[in-house]
Amino acid sequence: MRQTDRQTDRDMEVMQMLHMNKGVGETSYAQNSKVQHKIISTAKPIIHDAVQEILRSNNIESMGIADLGCSSGPNTLLLISEIIDVIIRAKSCSLGLHLSATTELRVFLNDLFSNDFNTIFMSLPAFYNKLKQEKGPELGSLFISATPGSFYGRLFPARSLHFVHASSSLHWLSQVPPGLDSKAAGEALNKGKIYISKTSPQCVLDAYALQFHNDFSLFLKSRAEEMVDGGRMVLSLMGRPSYDPTTPASCYQWELLAHALMTLVSEGLIAEEKVDSFNAPYYAPCEEELSLALKKEGSFLMDSLEAFEIDWDGDGYQELHHTFDMVGSGQKVAKTVRAVVESMLESHFGKDIMDHLFQCYAELVSNHLSKSRTKYINLVLVIIKKN
Amino acid sequence: MRQTDRQTDRDMEVMQMLHMNKGVGETSYAQNSKVQHKIISTAKPIIHDAVQEILRSNNIESMGIADLGCSSGPNTLLLISEIIDVIIRAKSCSLGLHLSATTELRVFLNDLFSNDFNTIFMSLPAFYNKLKQEKGPELGSLFISATPGSFYGRLFPARSLHFVHASSSLHWLSQVPPGLDSKAAGEALNKGKIYISKTSPQCVLDAYALQFHNDFSLFLKSRAEEMVDGGRMVLSLMGRPSYDPTTPASCYQWELLAHALMTLVSEGLIAEEKVDSFNAPYYAPCEEELSLALKKEGSFLMDSLEAFEIDWDGDGYQELHHTFDMVGSGQKVAKTVRAVVESMLESHFGKDIMDHLFQCYAELVSNHLSKSRTKYINLVLVIIKKN
Repeated sequence: MRQTDRQTDRDMEVMQMLHMNKGVGETSYAQNSKVQHKIISTAKPIIHDAVQEILRSNNIESMGIADLGCSSGPNTLLLISEIIDVIIRAKSCSLGLHLSATTELRVFLNDLFSNDFNTIFMSLPAFYNKLKQEKGPELGSLFISATPGSFYGRLFPARSLHFVHASSSLHWLSQVPPGLDSKAAGEALNKGKIYISKTSPQCVLDAYALQFHNDFSLFLKSRAEEMVDGGRMVLSLMGRPSYDPTTPASCYQWELLAHALMTLVSEGLIAEEKVDSFNAPYYAPCEEELSLALKKEGSFLMDSLEAFEIDWDGDGYQELHHTFDMVGSGQKVAKTVRAVVESMLESHFGKDIMDHLFQCYAELVSNHLSKSRTKYINLVLVIIKKN
Repeated sequence: MRQTDRQTDRDMEVMQMLHMNKGVGETSYAQNSKVQHKIISTAKPIIHDAVQEILRSNNIESMGIADLGCSSGPNTLLLISEIIDVIIRAKSCSLGLHLSATTELRVFLNDLFSNDFNTIFMSLPAFYNKLKQEKGPELGSLFISATPGSFYGRLFPARSLHFVHASSSLHWLSQVPPGLDSKAAGEALNKGKIYISKTSPQCVLDAYALQFHNDFSLFLKSRAEEMVDGGRMVLSLMGRPSYDPTTPASCYQWELLAHALMTLVSEGLIAEEKVDSFNAPYYAPCEEELSLALKKEGSFLMDSLEAFEIDWDGDGYQELHHTFDMVGSGQKVAKTVRAVVESMLESHFGKDIMDHLFQCYAELVSNHLSKSRTKYINLVLVIIKKN
C-alpha cells in the first residue's frame, strides 16, 4: 500500500467514524450539547460584530454564509437565527450598511458525511415558519442547504462565501497523527494514553502539533479560495492557555478518559494493546500556533483572538443547595463527552463496554472536580480574507 | 381556523408524510425503485441532448444543476453520474461548446424535508472516489449539496441554475385537492376510491385537474426566477395518453389499491370512512394540460414532449421460462408501489395493516396483469427558459 493510499484510508476512517451521537435520545448530542451551546453564546457578540463589519464593507446582493461542523441539535439552527437577527436589524436601521431589502441569504450547513442531517432537515419547516412569523417580509429570501464533507479541503464554489463560522469543530483533526507507532517495531509510543499526556514522549507532542499545523493550513487555503475579499471567519475551538500542551486545561478530560479505559483493562474487559493503539484525532492549540499558521498560509489577516474559560459541564458547575453537586456534575460531563466521542470509541473498543466505560468516567470526573475545578479554554478567532 | 392556515396545514401534511421508504431494507425505496430507474434510463438521451444544448449556448464558469425530487437510492447519484459524463465528454472534445477545463459544477439534490438524505450522504465518499478514479483531473471542481424543501416554491438563489431535472416527482401534488368533501355535509365525494376513478363524480376530476394546474404553474414560476436565460429543464412524470383521466394507463394502479383497501374494509380491519376520506396527492396529466400551463405561465418555451410506455414492474414484465410470471410480477409491482406510498398510507390507516394490505394488493395486481398488461405512461418534457 502506498503512503498516499494509507493516508486516504486514515482520512476516510475519521470521516466515517467521527460524528456526534445521532437522533434525539438520552445519549444523543442533541440532548447533551450544553458546553457547545455555552461556547456559541460566549462568541455571540463577536459573531455579531463580524457580520456587521462584512455588511459595512461589502455591497452584497446575495450573501453566502457557511457553518462548518454544524452537527445536529439545537445549536445547529441557533447560530443561523443569530446571524439572521443581525442582518435583519441591519436592514431595518441602515447605519451605513450596504444591504438592500432584497439581499438574498444563502446558508450552507456543513459537517462530515456521517452527521445526522435528517434530524436537522425535519426541524426546518418549523424553523422557517417561526422565522416568517417573527420577521415578516423583512426576512427576504433565505435558502438553507447542506454540504457534507471534510472542511480540510474544498467544499464550496470559488468566491461564494462572505461569512464562515466554525464552532467546536476545528479541534478535530483530519486523521490521527501518523508516527504514533515506533517505526522499527510498530510499537505504540503513547502507551496507556489516548491524547497528549504528561507521560507522552516528545515525539507524540510533535506529531500532534504537526498534524494540527497541516490541517489548519489546508483549512485556511481551502476557505481562501471560497471566500470573497473582505469576507470574515469566526473560528471557535478548544485551545490551551500556555505553550505547554500537557497542562490540565488542555488535556485533562482525555487523561481521565484514558484512566477509565485502563480501569476496564484492569477489569479484564478490554485488552491493554487496544488502549495503546487508540489516539484521539484532536488537538487544542495555543494562540502562537494559530498566529503562526495564519501568517505562513498568508491569505487571511488576524482581526482578533480571545480566550474564554468554559466549565466542563457548560453550566457554571452545577451547584445544589449551595453545595457543589459533585456526582451530578461528573455525570453531566460524562454525558457531554460521550455524545461527542462515542462513535469513535465504539468503532475501536466495541459497543458493549460503552455504558460501563462512561459510568466509570463519570466517577473519575466527579472525583477530580471535587479537588480541582478544571476548565476548558475556548479560543475565538476572527480573521479577514485579504484583498 | 382561517383558509390560509388550513391550506398551510394541508401543505405541511404532504410535506411531512410523503417520502419514499427510508434506509436500504427489504421494503425500502432504495431496493424497490426499478420503475423509476427505467424512467431515468428512457430519458437518458433526452437529458444528454439538453445538457449539450446548454453548453452550446452559454459561456459557463460555474454550472448550476438541480435534481428535484432526488429521493434516496441508487437512482439519486445515477443521474448525477450521467450529467457529469456528458459534461466531461464535452470538455475533452470541444465541439464548439462553451466550457473550460476549470468550469465548476454545482449540484443540488432536492427532496422534501423527510427524505432520507443521510443515506445519500453516506454514499458520497465512495461516489467521489469512484469519479476521481474514472475521470481523473478532467473531473474538475464538483460540489454536491442538498437543499430540502418543496419545489412548489422557491428553493434556490436567483439565476443560479443552468439545468434542472425532475424525474418521477412532479406527479406528486403539494396537497390533496381541496373540495373532495361536499361543502354542506362535509361528506366524502370520492367514496371507496383514493384517486380519480370511473365512478368519481366530475367535481373530483375537476378538483384534481385544478390542483395540478396550480401546482405546476407555481413550479414553473419558481424555477423561472432561479434559472438563467437559456437554461433547460427535463421533466419526466407520470401522465396519461388521452384527455380522459379515467383510462387504465392513468389510474388503474390506484383503482386496485382502493380495491385492496376495500377488501380490508370487508374483513373489518379498517373503517369504510377511512377509505372515503383518503385521497392521493397525485395527478397524471395529459400533454394538453402541460402545454396549456406552460403557455399561461409564460417563462418557458416547449422544446419537446414525448410519451413512453413503462411496464408496471419496470422490467418488461417478468417472464419465467417463457411463461409470464403473474405472481412474481404482482409482488414486484406491489413492492414498488409500497416503497413509494407506504409513508402516506401508514399515517392515515396505521402501521399494522400494511403487510396484509400489500399482500392483498399483490394478488389483485397479479390477477389484473393476467388479463391485461396495463402500462404506465411517462411523459418527458424539455423546456427552455426564455430570454
